[in-house]
Amino acid sequence: MQVTDLGLALASAEGTGLLLKLFVMFVAAKLAAEIFERLKQPAVAGEILAGVLIGPGVLALVHPDELTHALAEIGVIFLLFLVGLETKPSDIFRVGFRATLVAVLGVIVPFIFGYVLMIAWGQSQIESIFVGSAMVATSVGITARVLGQMGLLSLETSRIILGAAVIDDILGLLLLAVVSSVAKGEVNYVQIGTTAALAIGFTLLIILVGARAVNRIRPRVEKLKVGQSYLVFGLSLCLGLALVATYIGVAAIIGAFLAGMALAESAEGTDMPHQAEAVTEFLLPFFLTNIGMQLKLDAFLNRSTIILAILVTLLAVISKIIGCGLAAWPLGKKKALQVGVGMVPRGEVGIVVAQIGLGLHAVGDAAYGVVLVMAIATTLIAPPFLVRLYQGEQRTDTESVIPVSPLS
Amino acid sequence: MQVTDLGLALASAEGTGLLLKLFVMFVAAKLAAEIFERLKQPAVAGEILAGVLIGPGVLALVHPDELTHALAEIGVIFLLFLVGLETKPSDIFRVGFRATLVAVLGVIVPFIFGYVLMIAWGQSQIESIFVGSAMVATSVGITARVLGQMGLLSLETSRIILGAAVIDDILGLLLLAVVSSVAKGEVNYVQIGTTAALAIGFTLLIILVGARAVNRIRPRVEKLKVGQSYLVFGLSLCLGLALVATYIGVAAIIGAFLAGMALAESAEGTDMPHQAEAVTEFLLPFFLTNIGMQLKLDAFLNRSTIILAILVTLLAVISKIIGCGLAAWPLGKKKALQVGVGMVPRGEVGIVVAQIGLGLHAVGDAAYGVVLVMAIATTLIAPPFLVRLYQGEQRTDTESVIPVSPLS
Repeated sequence: MQVTDLGLALASAEGTGLLLKLFVMFVAAKLAAEIFERLKQPAVAGEILAGVLIGPGVLALVHPDELTHALAEIGVIFLLFLVGLETKPSDIFRVGFRATLVAVLGVIVPFIFGYVLMIAWGQSQIESIFVGSAMVATSVGITARVLGQMGLLSLETSRIILGAAVIDDILGLLLLAVVSSVAKGEVNYVQIGTTAALAIGFTLLIILVGARAVNRIRPRVEKLKVGQSYLVFGLSLCLGLALVATYIGVAAIIGAFLAGMALAESAEGTDMPHQAEAVTEFLLPFFLTNIGMQLKLDAFLNRSTIILAILVTLLAVISKIIGCGLAAWPLGKKKALQVGVGMVPRGEVGIVVAQIGLGLHAVGDAAYGVVLVMAIATTLIAPPFLVRLYQGEQRTDTESVIPVSPLS
Repeated sequence: MQVTDLGLALASAEGTGLLLKLFVMFVAAKLAAEIFERLKQPAVAGEILAGVLIGPGVLALVHPDELTHALAEIGVIFLLFLVGLETKPSDIFRVGFRATLVAVLGVIVPFIFGYVLMIAWGQSQIESIFVGSAMVATSVGITARVLGQMGLLSLETSRIILGAAVIDDILGLLLLAVVSSVAKGEVNYVQIGTTAALAIGFTLLIILVGARAVNRIRPRVEKLKVGQSYLVFGLSLCLGLALVATYIGVAAIIGAFLAGMALAESAEGTDMPHQAEAVTEFLLPFFLTNIGMQLKLDAFLNRSTIILAILVTLLAVISKIIGCGLAAWPLGKKKALQVGVGMVPRGEVGIVVAQIGLGLHAVGDAAYGVVLVMAIATTLIAPPFLVRLYQGEQRTDTESVIPVSPLS
């Protein structure tokens, strides 16, 4: 494809490989989004499928690597930061009890369903525990994106889903701590207790005093001489809390979401949500295609593995709807369903859990493949149902953070 | 630094390393920018120095790798895209003759100065030719950033610098084609001719018909159903033309700049410049720190190498000021100096040329180190003088693309 030898030398020095990757991922995602929008299907599902298509499973145009992972990670961090900017701590507090219940039942039911199925299928105890743990995960980015594009992030059920996702991530972390200890053959209660205390303490600290601290610092930030000081401050806080979150063990996106929430009040009326949105629009396609690109079907030549993957996926969908829906039942059938389906996507979080199991030699290649299919399939299945369940709701967001209008 | 073992496992799966790198680079750059602004020095110089400080040369907090290079590349691509969005093709045409003259003399004088110095210093012919070629390069990003932050991108001399930088890149490419052929021992005139024709043809094609084509496509783009369709179109064009540019052999930033220029007219009054600016604000610090991070001083324990590096840097500054200043002399002494100093930074372009020489075994480690110092030193020296030379000019940009105000 190179025009000249020198072109090649220069191009490799300047990263043709990088640009080709970026171009293919971005354009494929957006073409698929356009097609899906025309078919009245959610764009996110299209962008993930575009990833399956260009990835090693089908056309093999782009192979996931450290770079695509990095861009994906930055993309979803910005998405959750943006969602946080639209969510005040009080919004989450108001639904705190319900969100906690949704998270707890959304952990217990899928874990039991997954564990029992795997045991019944004749898998080892430790493998069954890991598959169960992967079924606990929630990839809140997908649901947040769908609701954000519909302008519905400030609905009660959206707040419940966001709050539950944060709590779910902490519970998932603790579950994983226990499970990993079991896999290693030694349960360290002190360590698990420390992890729990740190994760909960970090989250509560940011929610309780984050906004106030930001409001106090803001006048100083505005006096800084550096260009766009408030945006610079916001980005630093986002990266900083995402980093702290990973040190504690919770997902980086939780840190980014908390950073956004701490800034939500003082960012109102400023340009920051709009600026974070622009960065997200550029980077999010890399997150979505990267999920799809994980799918390699080599492990699935086996008929029994295919059946298991279908069963695990079905149970993954049903168990979250039952668990989370039950917890949200008092709100009415429709809202219970909205919450249940909103918690279905496992996305990158489910994949990470399976990767940890693989790393600990607790999960075999076949089970890893099954979880991969489950994680991607749930992420693809949920959005169309979400759109249908939320159809007809009034756009509630004062100012949509992710407007659908072509020119704004 | 990890709080728990599990934290470690999860964190590495989720990229603590990535986030740590991003956080340190971003925050160090912005702290340095703040300090430099307070000292009334240009922020860019501070951000590059921050890179030197955190890089392997001093504190070794972050090591440049594929990832930092990738972020740097995307950052400078967005910067040039943004600058292009503020530059209409007619703006460049109006200064076309002057810009061409500036580019040509800005290639000839530095090359001769560099070549003669290296020969006089007793270096081999091929090494002297490569160092001369590296002195020809112009890193327009640095100057564009300084002028953009001052709101002076639409000044006549700014246009001349931008136009000259594009032509300079094409001339540099051809020079490098000849030089590389010589290094390989065979000069392929057909190939050099093809490279020349492609590079010039590509640039003229986009400048001449790009804007018209974009204006014609725009109504269709607006009808697309995908969210933010105009931004998506702009980003696709930016990545696409940057990619084509690297295939031809010119720098990716030239493609991004041309994409911006093609969109400049139709983007007026839309949100796109503002959105491209947000992405740039996030990514540019990685470009600037990455330049500084290239500096390792191991090759400089030798006294004679240090003296040579100082001489090469001095000649690199003087030769561009003489060459480009001479070409801009009819505009008056002040403007001639503005143009001359604006063309001084060699930045990443000079480094790439030296890397190619290293790859062809035409340049030794010492000469590579000398070029590295020259590239970074010229990039640090120019901004303070630029700011002084442009002090007192009226802000001309209708709407500053890179506002300095903390809250906009």
